Amino acid sequence: MQRTEISKYGEFGLIKHLTERFKINHASTLKGIGDDAAVLNYAEKKILLTTDLLLEGVHFDLTYVPLKHLGYKAAVVNFSDIYAMNGHPKQITVSLGISKRFSVEDLEELYAGIELACKTYGVDLVGGDTSASFTGLTISITCLGEGETDKIVYRNGAKINDLVCVSGDLGSAYMGLQLLEREKIVFAANDQAAPDFNGMDYILQRQLKPEARQDIVLALSEKGIVPTAMMDISDGLSSELIHICSQSKVGCRIFEDKIPINYQAAVMAEELNMNIVTAALNGGEDYELIFTVALEDYEKILTVDNIGIIGHITKSEHGLFLVGRQGEEIALKAQGWNSLNES
Amino acid sequence: MQRTEISKYGEFGLIKHLTERFKINHASTLKGIGDDAAVLNYAEKKILLTTDLLLEGVHFDLTYVPLKHLGYKAAVVNFSDIYAMNGHPKQITVSLGISKRFSVEDLEELYAGIELACKTYGVDLVGGDTSASFTGLTISITCLGEGETDKIVYRNGAKINDLVCVSGDLGSAYMGLQLLEREKIVFAANDQAAPDFNGMDYILQRQLKPEARQDIVLALSEKGIVPTAMMDISDGLSSELIHICSQSKVGCRIFEDKIPINYQAAVMAEELNMNIVTAALNGGEDYELIFTVALEDYEKILTVDNIGIIGHITKSEHGLFLVGRQGEEIALKAQGWNSLNES
Repeated sequence: MQRTEISKYGEFGLIKHLTERFKINHASTLKGIGDDAAVLNYAEKKILLTTDLLLEGVHFDLTYVPLKHLGYKAAVVNFSDIYAMNGHPKQITVSLGISKRFSVEDLEELYAGIELACKTYGVDLVGGDTSASFTGLTISITCLGEGETDKIVYRNGAKINDLVCVSGDLGSAYMGLQLLEREKIVFAANDQAAPDFNGMDYILQRQLKPEARQDIVLALSEKGIVPTAMMDISDGLSSELIHICSQSKVGCRIFEDKIPINYQAAVMAEELNMNIVTAALNGGEDYELIFTVALEDYEKILTVDNIGIIGHITKSEHGLFLVGRQGEEIALKAQGWNSLNES
Repeated sequence: MQRTEISKYGEFGLIKHLTERFKINHASTLKGIGDDAAVLNYAEKKILLTTDLLLEGVHFDLTYVPLKHLGYKAAVVNFSDIYAMNGHPKQITVSLGISKRFSVEDLEELYAGIELACKTYGVDLVGGDTSASFTGLTISITCLGEGETDKIVYRNGAKINDLVCVSGDLGSAYMGLQLLEREKIVFAANDQAAPDFNGMDYILQRQLKPEARQDIVLALSEKGIVPTAMMDISDGLSSELIHICSQSKVGCRIFEDKIPINYQAAVMAEELNMNIVTAALNGGEDYELIFTVALEDYEKILTVDNIGIIGHITKSEHGLFLVGRQGEEIALKAQGWNSLNES
């Protein structure tokens, strides 16, 4: 494969080269890349702002993550935070710290992934920069989105008797990661070994190319449902539920047999002697939405595809519990992936 | 000094601990830290958005930069980008990648600097995250500002016969860096040597604790002057002038004897056998403003403090020239600090 050194372009030339194919989609983007700052116009809408810093070796492992997938995922996890506010992502900026190890072609791959994500979700790239890194790849993405004043959903609005809902299924991204880690070890021991990914495309895609739940936000809006509280599941169901309950000053009961599990993920967990419910509770990176809705929206919620009701909100003094298949009550703990403890 | 391990707090606890003293100043900040995204309201104003990624060993050297100064500078350089659009910074997010080497007290120092910058410039901290880094310290700051539609100044508006103006003086930050580098080498050879910073407080402050030119933006507004083009000087006067001229499709002539130089910086340059004009042209990190104004604003510009007129805009075909003290013409080249070539 062709390898063009980054020094051929220099900082300004490189950003221009990597971003010139990106289209501007929104009237709210008055000025994108190329000045000291981007200029945006949100008029009567509210602005949602989120940012994510991804570090090689901590948040991603380039031995099994293709750069295009990495670019896609880095953008999508930011969009997910905007959807989690019941808003819509509109603009992103991308800053990179890159070492000599990377060629222009490598960065083109990364940006191809970002471009695909922007195209899929209708988001404008409006700024960013590149600089040298003496170590690994660093990706910093900031995303702006718009929300309507009376439809923005915070974490602190859950009320007693609200239904606890989740989109899609949980634990699949974590099982995809376990599979990739297993094959990495096999490959390290024998570099002739072909990875065994047979029939595991779904959990791999969940780990390597996650999607943000734009569809759920649109569907809720269409049905006239405004959740009382909402988050995206990046650290695991337990951790996010604890955030919602603590900020809303309520408790909850969720039911083990209601937690949506994918078949491939369950098979993988069995193969690896892991508990799939634990993976669903603590695995993280599913980028599904967890939200609470008022009981009177029960009938409406049933008409939305890909949503499961997994429990309900209780008084704060009743605590946060998972009710097992035999009716046993297990206190929810935040064991979500915490990168600070891993350093 | 006390050393509290970061793992004592965990990610969410750490951010809460570091940011709880920050005040919210703006009605436009509807929701700051603590949800999936911040919520902002800009109503009829336009939004300016800029972002910066700072990597240890590339953009800063902790052997001589105190963490509090680093925090201050990291915030201020982003404010500077917003002022360079003739706008006012309002909100920032701060993301950190931190290794085990850093204690909670270290991060408190860094945030104390960010807090001081926010207080000085009236900016709200509204989000961010912390994560582990296996290598050095990584700081990613995003800044939002507001601008009035007809007062935002781009790089591409310079017209023939416009005056080229700069604020403050140039080259001082670079000479401050040279002084710090010299003392670092002395200290490496003899760790009993006390650094010799006598009478050099101004150039050190310019390097370690730069200010953004809010005062100039306010003064221009007060006098009813809207520049035709503007940038902040982060990479050096030459590099920024080339950006303005190329985006505005014009040329320029600036005059060596008009370039504002500080006395301490000149003394330091002489001591180190360096050319102070070269430092002013290519040194960077001064965070002064370079801007062009229409000739009819000449009288008004004279009434603004701390601004020097250094030349004028010409037709594109006349090129970009520095006119020396003997009348010789030297073509301007972008030799600004380019971190990509240093990797």
